[in-house]
Amino acid sequence: VTPHKLPSSSGPVDPAIIEDIVAANRVLAKEGVLDAFGHVSIRHPKDPNRYLMSRSRSPILVVADDIMEFDLDSNPVDSLGRSPYGERFIHGQIYKSRPDVHAVIHSHSPTVVPFSVSQVSLRPIAHTATFLFGGVPIFDIHVEDIGTTGLLVSNNKLGAALAATLADRPVALMRGHGNVVVGPTVARAVVRAIYTEVNARQLAIAIALGGPIKYISAEEALELPIPLGLERAWEVMKRTALGE
Amino acid sequence: VTPHKLPSSSGPVDPAIIEDIVAANRVLAKEGVLDAFGHVSIRHPKDPNRYLMSRSRSPILVVADDIMEFDLDSNPVDSLGRSPYGERFIHGQIYKSRPDVHAVIHSHSPTVVPFSVSQVSLRPIAHTATFLFGGVPIFDIHVEDIGTTGLLVSNNKLGAALAATLADRPVALMRGHGNVVVGPTVARAVVRAIYTEVNARQLAIAIALGGPIKYISAEEALELPIPLGLERAWEVMKRTALGE
Amino acid sequence: VTPHKLPSSSGPVDPAIIEDIVAANRVLAKEGVLDAFGHVSIRHPKDPNRYLMSRSRSPILVVADDIMEFDLDSNPVDSLGRSPYGERFIHGQIYKSRPDVHAVIHSHSPTVVPFSVSQVSLRPIAHTATFLFGGVPIFDIHVEDIGTTGLLVSNNKLGAALAATLADRPVALMRGHGNVVVGPTVARAVVRAIYTEVNARQLAIAIALGGPIKYISAEEALELPIPLGLERAWEVMKRTALGE
Amino acid sequence: VTPHKLPSSSGPVDPAIIEDIVAANRVLAKEGVLDAFGHVSIRHPKDPNRYLMSRSRSPILVVADDIMEFDLDSNPVDSLGRSPYGERFIHGQIYKSRPDVHAVIHSHSPTVVPFSVSQVSLRPIAHTATFLFGGVPIFDIHVEDIGTTGLLVSNNKLGAALAATLADRPVALMRGHGNVVVGPTVARAVVRAIYTEVNARQLAIAIALGGPIKYISAEEALELPIPLGLERAWEVMKRTALGE
Repeated sequence: VTPHKLPSSSGPVDPAIIEDIVAANRVLAKEGVLDAFGHVSIRHPKDPNRYLMSRSRSPILVVADDIMEFDLDSNPVDSLGRSPYGERFIHGQIYKSRPDVHAVIHSHSPTVVPFSVSQVSLRPIAHTATFLFGGVPIFDIHVEDIGTTGLLVSNNKLGAALAATLADRPVALMRGHGNVVVGPTVARAVVRAIYTEVNARQLAIAIALGGPIKYISAEEALELPIPLGLERAWEVMKRTALGE
Repeated sequence: VTPHKLPSSSGPVDPAIIEDIVAANRVLAKEGVLDAFGHVSIRHPKDPNRYLMSRSRSPILVVADDIMEFDLDSNPVDSLGRSPYGERFIHGQIYKSRPDVHAVIHSHSPTVVPFSVSQVSLRPIAHTATFLFGGVPIFDIHVEDIGTTGLLVSNNKLGAALAATLADRPVALMRGHGNVVVGPTVARAVVRAIYTEVNARQLAIAIALGGPIKYISAEEALELPIPLGLERAWEVMKRTALGE
Repeated sequence: VTPHKLPSSSGPVDPAIIEDIVAANRVLAKEGVLDAFGHVSIRHPKDPNRYLMSRSRSPILVVADDIMEFDLDSNPVDSLGRSPYGERFIHGQIYKSRPDVHAVIHSHSPTVVPFSVSQVSLRPIAHTATFLFGGVPIFDIHVEDIGTTGLLVSNNKLGAALAATLADRPVALMRGHGNVVVGPTVARAVVRAIYTEVNARQLAIAIALGGPIKYISAEEALELPIPLGLERAWEVMKRTALGE
Repeated sequence: VTPHKLPSSSGPVDPAIIEDIVAANRVLAKEGVLDAFGHVSIRHPKDPNRYLMSRSRSPILVVADDIMEFDLDSNPVDSLGRSPYGERFIHGQIYKSRPDVHAVIHSHSPTVVPFSVSQVSLRPIAHTATFLFGGVPIFDIHVEDIGTTGLLVSNNKLGAALAATLADRPVALMRGHGNVVVGPTVARAVVRAIYTEVNARQLAIAIALGGPIKYISAEEALELPIPLGLERAWEVMKRTALGE
């Protein structure tokens, strides 16, 4: 991070929003989508040029006081001595390029990694993963001619390149690393992240069975822009994660 | 749901029956057969034209007060402000066409999905899954020329088409979606749902080993109409699920 | 069971022995080797013609008061109203034919089932499963011309046929069903049952990797008649299972 | 162990170091890298010729009082009646030959075993396992012409042979047995052990998908000598394992 004047805060946020971020971290950790790494952010509800995300902490440990505010260059508004994630640039750059996105998840989703290094495409077979229809782009950090630091998206240039690969899609794989999953709400992004992993597992089994596979069709993918029961799923996940 | 006069109730039900529904939901959630979606119903013990099922809730959260009564067109007798599942038509239509059935489960059973999109058949190899012998039909919602809403069985026409595909079998797969499992009792349906998933996992491994597979034979499938130890299995599952 | 005079008891047993049976049931249930079915027995420490096993209960629920005494024809000494397992004949017949055996486990060990229906042999690759060297016979109940009841070992003739297939080996697979695992002590049998399952999982992966596999050699299998650390493993398993 | 004068102690150790060993045992047991066997050691912080490791106990049960001090021939400084692990020679010999190493883990890491008996190499595909780049040697105890005892590294000659196979690498597989993982700190070794297992699982899936695989390149492996977020991962693992 280059030294600069701290961006101003866009003001306090409804505690329910903060709770959503905390719950999303725990839900994804318990589902095995997030390991000791990975992160979840939400766009600031009052200012599209700010986003909210935990300080650098393992998802399962995140609590309300860890949530920091960032501008879209991923400068913290006020760190209060808290260290941000080294790959926060993923979030800022996606919020910049995707006004429709209000939640971003970066994970090491375990069964997504094999597809990220394979020529076999991660295509949807399950009706809970129809959002994968239309292609899941793979961001290969080393093909990008922009200078890299390991396989990590550790600056805004790399974040912007990842956002460009994601384009208008809900999910992009990161080669040898994991994925980014976005959504118009945190509930939607969380459920997408879970069913991306589930569909990856199911597709790997279907491929191992051998023979042709009937994938989700274009027509089927179009029919369900808003998943039925999403709020119900999020309700149970959140309650379970917060121990209520 | 078209507006109509509410069907009348067929009267109160033994709390032990309600407890069975609650336990079945939790058992199947803990076994990983049900995810945040899916549902379990029981035919009304006093009236074959009514069935009992939770309001729209994730299975792991279902409690006695969530159980609603429906007629076989899946109209709720009295919703008391509770929302029913969007796919309840699966249940009503199966109870209509199958007088022998007293319990219906709809799940996203994870290892069943790969078989639902494959040309490789889900056939029984385990003695706990002999009920799969004779064929596991696959309901492909998009082949049915009756108007669809995504891949969901969201009206009586689709429910009837699924019931027709199920015909007289205990299990039908739903392509890219999951399955329906039925039984003469809830214990039987639950154990069938579990061993359908177990057999799917074991068959996927057997296929990956390579070479011919010895499936359950017709003779073997016929020999055990009533599974030994069913009540024992249900006892432990129920007690564990209800935390006793 | 044909009516007959009850066999006499060979007397009370050290509570530590009873605790071993209870612990073995729970350990194997927690390890996923036993599901809601399956059973564990120990030969009576004072009388080689008697064995001890739970009444018909799911393994995870077994407590000291469930343990019954049987003669080697699997007649209960005193049922006290408790129902025995329908497949107890496995145990009696093995104790009859194998004086060296003091513990018998029958399980539906999940990854063993695929090998039981495959022409690919379950051979040892892990040093913790060297006891599998020399062959794991498969008992195919329907090849035996002795009258069957489903795939269950539900009488002494079938039990004797299974014991004959097991011969002098520590493990036999039961086609489409599971396995029997025996040992000179319950600790040994439990650890064998666990590592039979572990080796099956690891071998399935090794086969899926493709190419030749280096199995445990004859020399390696001979070198370790008594597994190092067995008592240590059993200590932790027992303590964890009994919640101490 | 041949009789000899006990080596002298190099003095008491900061309780935080002891806690690290205890936490590492539990973390790896909970992650499924260690089963009822396996062990973790740390080089003595004040004396490079001593190391610290639990007495012979299953990892999940290890407590501070179990930690013993050894010289590099793996003689205990003072056993206080505690039995050491039979394979402690792995640790002493690696500390002898690798001054850079301050923590050693020996495990039966389950998905590592299939690669240890296969001609398919365990190569890195995940950015969390770049340390595997450059080769993962396989120690085949029976190829070594030095006298063996089963597949166990039960004396200093075998320990030295294993250390020679490991050479300057962070991980060596032990054929049909498991692996050794080393690091400059216990946090580093633990995270390496976990991601060796994770990468093995992911690579097995990628291979089963079929087609060419994009492995981590030399350049990518070089870029990250110190893993970002290591301390964060260790923090959460330790806290969770110690129940804080």
